Amino acid sequence: MQDNPILVEVTRGSLVESCHRGAVAIADADGRVLLGVGDIERPVYPRSAVKAMQALPLIESGAADAFRLGDKELAIACASHSGEEAHIDAVRSLLAKAGLDESQLACGAHWPIGERASRELMRAGKSPTAIHNNCSGKHAGMLAVAVHRGLDPVGYERLGHPVQQEIRRILSETCGIALDQSRMGIDGCSVPTWAAPLRALARGFARLGTGEGLTGERARAAKRLVAACFASPVMVAGEGRFDTLVMSKLAPSVFVKGGAEGVHCAALPGLGLGVAVKVDDGAKRGAERALAETIAALLPQGRSALADQLAGEIVNWRGTRVGRIAASRELQRALGSLAALDRGDCGVVTGA
Amino acid sequence: MQDNPILVEVTRGSLVESCHRGAVAIADADGRVLLGVGDIERPVYPRSAVKAMQALPLIESGAADAFRLGDKELAIACASHSGEEAHIDAVRSLLAKAGLDESQLACGAHWPIGERASRELMRAGKSPTAIHNNCSGKHAGMLAVAVHRGLDPVGYERLGHPVQQEIRRILSETCGIALDQSRMGIDGCSVPTWAAPLRALARGFARLGTGEGLTGERARAAKRLVAACFASPVMVAGEGRFDTLVMSKLAPSVFVKGGAEGVHCAALPGLGLGVAVKVDDGAKRGAERALAETIAALLPQGRSALADQLAGEIVNWRGTRVGRIAASRELQRALGSLAALDRGDCGVVTGA
Repeated sequence: MQDNPILVEVTRGSLVESCHRGAVAIADADGRVLLGVGDIERPVYPRSAVKAMQALPLIESGAADAFRLGDKELAIACASHSGEEAHIDAVRSLLAKAGLDESQLACGAHWPIGERASRELMRAGKSPTAIHNNCSGKHAGMLAVAVHRGLDPVGYERLGHPVQQEIRRILSETCGIALDQSRMGIDGCSVPTWAAPLRALARGFARLGTGEGLTGERARAAKRLVAACFASPVMVAGEGRFDTLVMSKLAPSVFVKGGAEGVHCAALPGLGLGVAVKVDDGAKRGAERALAETIAALLPQGRSALADQLAGEIVNWRGTRVGRIAASRELQRALGSLAALDRGDCGVVTGA
Repeated sequence: MQDNPILVEVTRGSLVESCHRGAVAIADADGRVLLGVGDIERPVYPRSAVKAMQALPLIESGAADAFRLGDKELAIACASHSGEEAHIDAVRSLLAKAGLDESQLACGAHWPIGERASRELMRAGKSPTAIHNNCSGKHAGMLAVAVHRGLDPVGYERLGHPVQQEIRRILSETCGIALDQSRMGIDGCSVPTWAAPLRALARGFARLGTGEGLTGERARAAKRLVAACFASPVMVAGEGRFDTLVMSKLAPSVFVKGGAEGVHCAALPGLGLGVAVKVDDGAKRGAERALAETIAALLPQGRSALADQLAGEIVNWRGTRVGRIAASRELQRALGSLAALDRGDCGVVTGA
């Protein structure tokens, strides 16, 4: 396995205290790689980063129209939400419109990701249920597809269920690769996660953002989902979280979605590009920092819009500045080469 | 900078999803390195891993005797506690015996590390204060030293205060190295953290556990602190946490203490050894797994006592086994070489 370069460094005082290695792919809808840093061919589990792709059947099947789903319900189907009141309301609404209820969610329960939401639940003396799971919107969407297609919703999360097989086919077609069952894992929320190279994920996001390379029906479905997320960025993640902040500032120029274990993807429709990042050690702080730097390098307005994310200040419990999370020189150098590239060219920079 | 080897792999399905690089040093009180994996010469911030060393002045100054501190109060001074009721009681007791109160703590506030403790505080409708900070026992100990020495306790956390200068001297003497102010950082709780190579930290822990190489007074102080932690392992961390579990099972064979950003140290008094681990990316799961494997390789009873830690199962929100956190072959191979080594030898295995 190729050693990936250091993408992000965490500095305290004058020393680099920790670092995050990983890989970054930037590709267009045809699969041309504009930039590759590190190993972009090794299959990685995309986890929640591809929720918008997993939600495509909700539109394509006609379920979204039949159940008259609005932007918030579509956005929550693409979300890793914080479990805030607005998120729970959107999931309940989606379920109710499809004639379902939360007892049918197979995602398992966890305390809301959002600190405030978590505290409010605790203060009310309650315990979390499946609806508080950050994936409950995605699951509600999968259930709605099953019901609309006249399928038994029980077991909708399992590999053998037609809903998961349809998602597998869509992921494969959108990213332009075969998905190998020997490279399938079970996600935290119990649905299959299919490993794919970053190069393919970046291509998939370029297609998701532009519709290029997709059938007309799928291109329209993708456009509708991305537009729903742009209309309600807070639905996709939550208060203070990276994806919500980035899209609040940069929609419709950037669609962004993170997943567990340091995967983070983006679509930049205006540039016709997709981006896929995986940090080797799975750290969210590393993936977010690398992706922010990549967006800032690609979009003229990115650096000012993401100033807080790029500053990466670490403050301690008393509010003292004690360190910084910053892109490595290697990542900066690789991204710097983008400025010199003719966008029609296909340049691969391996960073190792 | 030398590339450190992969110490720990996180597997999901059939793929390695994430990995943690880092370094491990095992040394004796004379500074002889029994095993070195990766770069053990690069200075790293030990953070909370050296709290027992930072508590040595509490005994050496006579404060512990003057204030009639018991095992729980000494253990909490060495702790990164979970903010459970028993922890808060011990910190309050330490402060009260020294004629202090929690308003003098300079560590800043955060929600209790312990999930249960955090929920209980939320359910009570309260917000955390400095006493809930995992470092409040350490800070209470530092304050007690200042008061006992007749120093102004205000500013006890600052580099220039005699308490911090005494700690600097003790860390330097115990680890057998000069501590360079250009390699000092400010910790999360606002006190200085002094960078030291893993080789020196391992030596320091060998001395802390055995008393060898220390003055008689310091050896007795170290023995008393370690005994206090062995008597109350739950005081040192909390319910379900690594340090508490390991010492509950393996005291008095192993003293163990973790710090932020993937630092974890141990003393094995019976073997005359100290261990220091740093995971490059700062991940606790990586450091704990690497240290558990190291302890299991050193102690005959370690593998069965740490069976749960070594199994490293990852279960998802519905309780399904989806993956595993395991020592890499490289770490296993390096640790395997320990069995072949004569303990009188000095073997360095570089893993990169």
